[in-house]
Amino acid sequence: MSFELTILGCNSAIPTNHRKPTAQLLNVAERFFLIDCGEGTQLQLRKYKIRMQSIQHIFISHLHGDHYFGLIGFISTMHLLGREKELNIYAPAELKEIIYIQLAASKTELRFPLFFHEFGFDEPELLMESNDLTVHTIPLSHSLPCCGFLFQEKTKPRRMRKEKIEEYNIPLEAVPAIKAGVDYLLADGTLIPHIELTRGAQLPRSFAFCSDTSYHEAIIPQIKGVDMLYHEATFLDELKERARQTMHSTAKEAATIASKAQVGKLIIGHYSQRYFDLSPLLDEAQDVFPDTYLAIEGEKFELKREYDSDS
Amino acid sequence: MSFELTILGCNSAIPTNHRKPTAQLLNVAERFFLIDCGEGTQLQLRKYKIRMQSIQHIFISHLHGDHYFGLIGFISTMHLLGREKELNIYAPAELKEIIYIQLAASKTELRFPLFFHEFGFDEPELLMESNDLTVHTIPLSHSLPCCGFLFQEKTKPRRMRKEKIEEYNIPLEAVPAIKAGVDYLLADGTLIPHIELTRGAQLPRSFAFCSDTSYHEAIIPQIKGVDMLYHEATFLDELKERARQTMHSTAKEAATIASKAQVGKLIIGHYSQRYFDLSPLLDEAQDVFPDTYLAIEGEKFELKREYDSDS
Repeated sequence: MSFELTILGCNSAIPTNHRKPTAQLLNVAERFFLIDCGEGTQLQLRKYKIRMQSIQHIFISHLHGDHYFGLIGFISTMHLLGREKELNIYAPAELKEIIYIQLAASKTELRFPLFFHEFGFDEPELLMESNDLTVHTIPLSHSLPCCGFLFQEKTKPRRMRKEKIEEYNIPLEAVPAIKAGVDYLLADGTLIPHIELTRGAQLPRSFAFCSDTSYHEAIIPQIKGVDMLYHEATFLDELKERARQTMHSTAKEAATIASKAQVGKLIIGHYSQRYFDLSPLLDEAQDVFPDTYLAIEGEKFELKREYDSDS
Repeated sequence: MSFELTILGCNSAIPTNHRKPTAQLLNVAERFFLIDCGEGTQLQLRKYKIRMQSIQHIFISHLHGDHYFGLIGFISTMHLLGREKELNIYAPAELKEIIYIQLAASKTELRFPLFFHEFGFDEPELLMESNDLTVHTIPLSHSLPCCGFLFQEKTKPRRMRKEKIEEYNIPLEAVPAIKAGVDYLLADGTLIPHIELTRGAQLPRSFAFCSDTSYHEAIIPQIKGVDMLYHEATFLDELKERARQTMHSTAKEAATIASKAQVGKLIIGHYSQRYFDLSPLLDEAQDVFPDTYLAIEGEKFELKREYDSDS
């Protein structure tokens, strides 16, 4: 069961030939979630050999072009390639018309179902829920209404010890209840604690995507303790004033949020094009939060499975 | 005085990492005209070191996405880079709203004047005229309303022979009339024919851009004798039926148009993604029209200055 993030674009505002605008792909158990979709994202997906048809959910944080100009091209290519699988887009409301007006201009009648799910910006909303995953918005503070996204695996049941099934001759239909925490009563009246029959559950993994935003402590309660945080770090702290004006963050500020929210690891990105060498941004963030990494195109960040200790 | 075409993208419908969608740049005497603007065109311009700010006129043939999805990103980048120079867009009417709705979504108030010039599809229209150049639409036959563009230098005056100015002591203010064809009367009453005083004029150069279109002989009178024709050639002739259905042309058909219109040279492009090796398309076209070239990204096609013979 994978939980892996691939960076497809890491630059802010203006794409360059060595850094594309924001786009990331999250693979949760071979379901693929595209997060933001700057111009050229379909080519980045091709470059990193990700099957575009496997993406069924796209999350767009806000309507600055470097976060969505690639969406219409992605949809258009899906159509031309004969896609039939549905596609869900979670985005600010205006995006629906932007896409539809372009489909209408080319008289395109999509061969696949396209669903828009709009969201607000005042408080966290549940965007998507499956048996094992939820996705919530994270309201951010930016010059346009903007939300990040919080991907959380659901709490999983403890895992059955196979040798105990044999030892106590436990019928299979009793297993779900035991995994869920019910003790097991033997025919002779002995009660076997479920803890003895099971091993620790896989710990739910979580990823918070926060771009674009000024330094915004209000997000800390929501992202507290996530395993992996992506937080924009457009500038070095020496340009704190510029960050303030444009409602972006500095590397130091991203790391401060990571530290206060006690996250597992921090990935920074959305670099201003003024930085060719990114190491000063990394150094600045690591001074505050050592477990920081740079978002670099093609880089993958995996959260391995971990388990509750067998107490 | 340059007259040079640079290919920025040459693929049809779906961009790939080795072939981008349609975009071309025509340089006429250091004025730069962008023709179509598929997704990623701004990166192609960067790649080939073309100063984006120098482009003041963009021509969009029709509203299939592979011909315009890169326009909003180009405009957005121009804005972010602080452009002040005006930008003119010649396009089907609906494009204006598509661009404006996206600028509105990001609350962008452009720092530079953006002018839209819409055109119809029934007959050739004059889109732009300067002292030395005209641009007309070329109505094409496609599944969406679509026009090509005809760039024509204006007829230039004959060139004065400097040695004759000295020989006959001709005042400078008489030169324009002589170049325009007026004979010169000496003080002694001798009439010197203007032909003796001048050399042949530079021949006006012309380029016709025709994409996308089915085989459409109606364009021949308009493009008759152009120095350089770009004509789409999406398919090999063995897929003529497919070309018919999708209202595209085969390489053979493109070459037949070139031959019947007696153009100087033919450039083919807009290749179906099914063709990795393009040489069969070139071979097929050259069988009909030998002076055919492949549109390949980064390739330049220059029309050198030529002159009327000194008759």
